[in-house]
Amino acid sequence: MAAEQPGTTSDGAAVGAPDDLPLAGVLVLDLSQFLAGPVAALRLADMGARVIKVERPRTGEIGRTLAFAGRWRDGDTLSFHAMNRGKESVVADLKDPEDLAAVRALVERADVVVQNFRPGVMERLGLDFATLRELNPRLVYASASGYGAEGPWASRPGQDLLAQSVSALPWVNVGGVSGSGERPVPVGLALADHLLSCHLAQGVCAMLVRAARTGVGGLVESSLLEGVLDLGSELLTARLNGGPVPPSVGPHSAHGWLPAPYGTYPTADGHLSIAMAPVDLLGRLLDEPVLAGLTDPDEWWSRRAEVEKRIADVLATAGTDHWLTVLDAADVWCAPLLDLEQLLAHDAFAALGMTQEVRRPGREPGEPDVAVATVRSPLRVDGVRPGDPWAAPRLGEQGHVRDAAALLAGRPDRAAGSP
Amino acid sequence: MAAEQPGTTSDGAAVGAPDDLPLAGVLVLDLSQFLAGPVAALRLADMGARVIKVERPRTGEIGRTLAFAGRWRDGDTLSFHAMNRGKESVVADLKDPEDLAAVRALVERADVVVQNFRPGVMERLGLDFATLRELNPRLVYASASGYGAEGPWASRPGQDLLAQSVSALPWVNVGGVSGSGERPVPVGLALADHLLSCHLAQGVCAMLVRAARTGVGGLVESSLLEGVLDLGSELLTARLNGGPVPPSVGPHSAHGWLPAPYGTYPTADGHLSIAMAPVDLLGRLLDEPVLAGLTDPDEWWSRRAEVEKRIADVLATAGTDHWLTVLDAADVWCAPLLDLEQLLAHDAFAALGMTQEVRRPGREPGEPDVAVATVRSPLRVDGVRPGDPWAAPRLGEQGHVRDAAALLAGRPDRAAGSP
Repeated sequence: MAAEQPGTTSDGAAVGAPDDLPLAGVLVLDLSQFLAGPVAALRLADMGARVIKVERPRTGEIGRTLAFAGRWRDGDTLSFHAMNRGKESVVADLKDPEDLAAVRALVERADVVVQNFRPGVMERLGLDFATLRELNPRLVYASASGYGAEGPWASRPGQDLLAQSVSALPWVNVGGVSGSGERPVPVGLALADHLLSCHLAQGVCAMLVRAARTGVGGLVESSLLEGVLDLGSELLTARLNGGPVPPSVGPHSAHGWLPAPYGTYPTADGHLSIAMAPVDLLGRLLDEPVLAGLTDPDEWWSRRAEVEKRIADVLATAGTDHWLTVLDAADVWCAPLLDLEQLLAHDAFAALGMTQEVRRPGREPGEPDVAVATVRSPLRVDGVRPGDPWAAPRLGEQGHVRDAAALLAGRPDRAAGSP
Repeated sequence: MAAEQPGTTSDGAAVGAPDDLPLAGVLVLDLSQFLAGPVAALRLADMGARVIKVERPRTGEIGRTLAFAGRWRDGDTLSFHAMNRGKESVVADLKDPEDLAAVRALVERADVVVQNFRPGVMERLGLDFATLRELNPRLVYASASGYGAEGPWASRPGQDLLAQSVSALPWVNVGGVSGSGERPVPVGLALADHLLSCHLAQGVCAMLVRAARTGVGGLVESSLLEGVLDLGSELLTARLNGGPVPPSVGPHSAHGWLPAPYGTYPTADGHLSIAMAPVDLLGRLLDEPVLAGLTDPDEWWSRRAEVEKRIADVLATAGTDHWLTVLDAADVWCAPLLDLEQLLAHDAFAALGMTQEVRRPGREPGEPDVAVATVRSPLRVDGVRPGDPWAAPRLGEQGHVRDAAALLAGRPDRAAGSP
C-alpha cells in the first residue's frame, strides 16, 4: 500500500502552514486513557491543536500496553500509535503533590483538558472542573464516562462492548429481540468509544467558540451509552411515538423498519447490498415475474420476507460483477460487500488518501526513525486532509511535567520540521 | 415513558439562557437533505446555533417523506422530526433566479452553510464554496458526500448501507471474510450517515474557532466512507503494519482481534456480554476446571474457540441475572444484552434524560400543538443537557426566502418562549 505522504494533498500540493489549521494555537492536556478520550484529543490535534499527554511514570497510559495485544511497534501497541499520533508526552505522578502542582500550573496555560477517569477520581485529585476553572476561567473541560454521572449504571465498567450490549444495538443489527432465537451481533469495532470521541471533540470545539466570544470556558460531558443512543435517534423517535417493535426479519434485511429489497444477498461468488429500490423494477431486471408484478409499495413491506427470498434466489445464480452491471445500468442503488483485503486493494480506497506514514525519531542519535503506517483525519480542511509527520510520542518524550515551563517555551524537538 | 422536560436539568433546575449555549449567535443555513447534513446541522442547533432550512417548494426536503416510511406525525416522517427539531424553514426554488439571489443574500448574513448535494450540483447553482466565499469571507462551508470528490466511487450513490458494504464493516462485525461462509451483518442503523454528521459538526465548530481568530471562514468536507474508515482506524493501523487478516471466529466472539472471553453468550433466559477478563478467574467463578487451569494468556487467544465454547456451555445453565451477580462480585466486566423494549423500560435509560417532548404549534389559532417525543443531544454543557421546546418546522413555516430580511430581523414566532 502506497501511503500518501503527510503534509501534501492527494495531488502533491503542499499543505498550508500549521497556522492555517482551525485549532492552531490551542493547547490541549490529554489526561485520558485508552480510547474515547485519547481519540477525542486526536481529533483536536488533527485540527491543529497542540496536544500534550500527561502520563503516569514507568507504564504510561494503559493504552500503551492494552488492546489488540501482541501487535506492537517500538514498545507501544499499534492501537496506541493509531490514537496518539502527533501528540507530545510528559510524565506526572498524580499522587505526588509537587507533580500535581506542576500539572495545575500547566492547566493555567491550557485551553482544554480531556479526561475519562471513573466518576470521582478527578475530584479526589483536585483536578475536577470546579477546581480547575478557578485556576483558568477560559478552560474547556471535557469529561467522558460509560453511562453518565448518575443512575443505576453510573458505576458499572465503562467499556465499549458492554455499552453496546445495554444499548440494544446488537439486537437491532439482526432485526431481532431477546428470546427470538437470533444471535445478537455487536459491532466488531469500538463503536461506542468512537462515537463518544466524536461528540467530545465537537463539544470542545463548540465551547472554544464560546470561549472566543465570552472569555469563559466550561464543561462538556458525554458517555459511551449516550453516543450509541444518539446513533439510534431515528429508531427511538419512531418507538417513542408509538411505533411498533420492529418485527423480526429474515436473513437478508439490513434494517428492521425498511421494506424490501433493503439488505444483503449472496451471489455466486460474493455478496451484494441493495438499498431502496422499486421491487417491480428489480423484478424486471432480474427476470423474476412475481417480483415484476409487485407494483404496490405496501407489499414491499408486508411481503418482505418472501420478496427478499425471491431476490436472493436469482442473485445466487451469477456473480457480483454481473449483477452490479445489470443494476447500475438501471440506477438501482447497490454495492458489493467487500472484506478488508478487498477494500485495501481497491483503487477507490487509495483515492481517498486516508493513510499516512508517521515517524518517531530513533532513541539514540544516528538510530533510524521508527515508521508507523496509519490513517488520517476523516475531514478535509480547505480541500486538504490534515497530515502530521509525527508518530505517537514515547512515554515522557517531552520530559517531566515539572519542566513544563521549558516545554511550553517552544517545541524545540519539533521545530526542525519533518523527522 | 416519562420524557424529561426540555429546558430543565435532570434534577429540575432551569437551563441557562440560550445566550449561554456555545454557538449562540451563530446562523446556519441548512441546504442539506435526508440524514448526514441535517443531523450535522441539528448538532449545531443543539449547541445553540440558529438553523434555517432552505427547502424546495411544495415537497420540501426529501427527508419529510422518505425513511421509515409510514411513520408520520403531522405530515412529516418521524425521521424528519428526529433530525430537524428546533430548526426553522424557508422555501426557495433554486432554479428561480430571484429565489437564488435571495438565498445568496441570506448567505451574506450566515456563518455556516451545510450541503450534501451530489458533486457538481452546487457549482451549477453558483452556491459552491468558491463562489459564496466571495460574498462572505467569514463563511464556513460544510460539504458531505458518499465517497469523496475523486476516485472511482465518487459518482456512486452515497447511501448508508452501500457505504457500509464497501467499508468491510459487515464482515468485521461477524469476524469473517468474503467466501468464508458467514453471513455479513451491516449495522442496522444509519451508521455511516451518523458518523459523517459528527465529523461535519466537529469540523464546522473547529472552523468557527478559526473564523473567530482570523476573520476568515473555510471549507470542511467528509464522506460516508471516510467516517466508517475512521471508525476502523485501530484495525486499519494494525493491518497496514503487517498484522494478519483477522482469523474467522466462532459464534461468540465480538471482536476479531481480542482473545477470549470477549464476546456474547446465551444464558438460560437471555444473553450476556463479557469484555476482557482473565480466563482462569472466569473458570473458577463458573466452576469449570479446564478454564480454571488456563493461566497462560497466550492460550486465551490461541484456544479462543474452545474457551468460548466452554464458557457458553456453563452460562447456558442459568439465567442472566444469576451470572451478573456472580461476575459482578468478582469485578468481571459484563453486561446483559438488552433489546429495545428492555432498554426503554430500564431505570438507567430514564436516568440519562436523553428524551424530550417537542411541540409544533397548531396550523390555526386555537388548534392544539402537535407533540413529538424524541431524543436530545448526547452532550451536556455546563452540567445541563441542551433542550429546545420546538419541533421540526413545517415546510416554509418561516415563509419564503425572499422575505429573508424580515426573517432575520427577529424570531418573532419564537420570542414568546415555550410553545
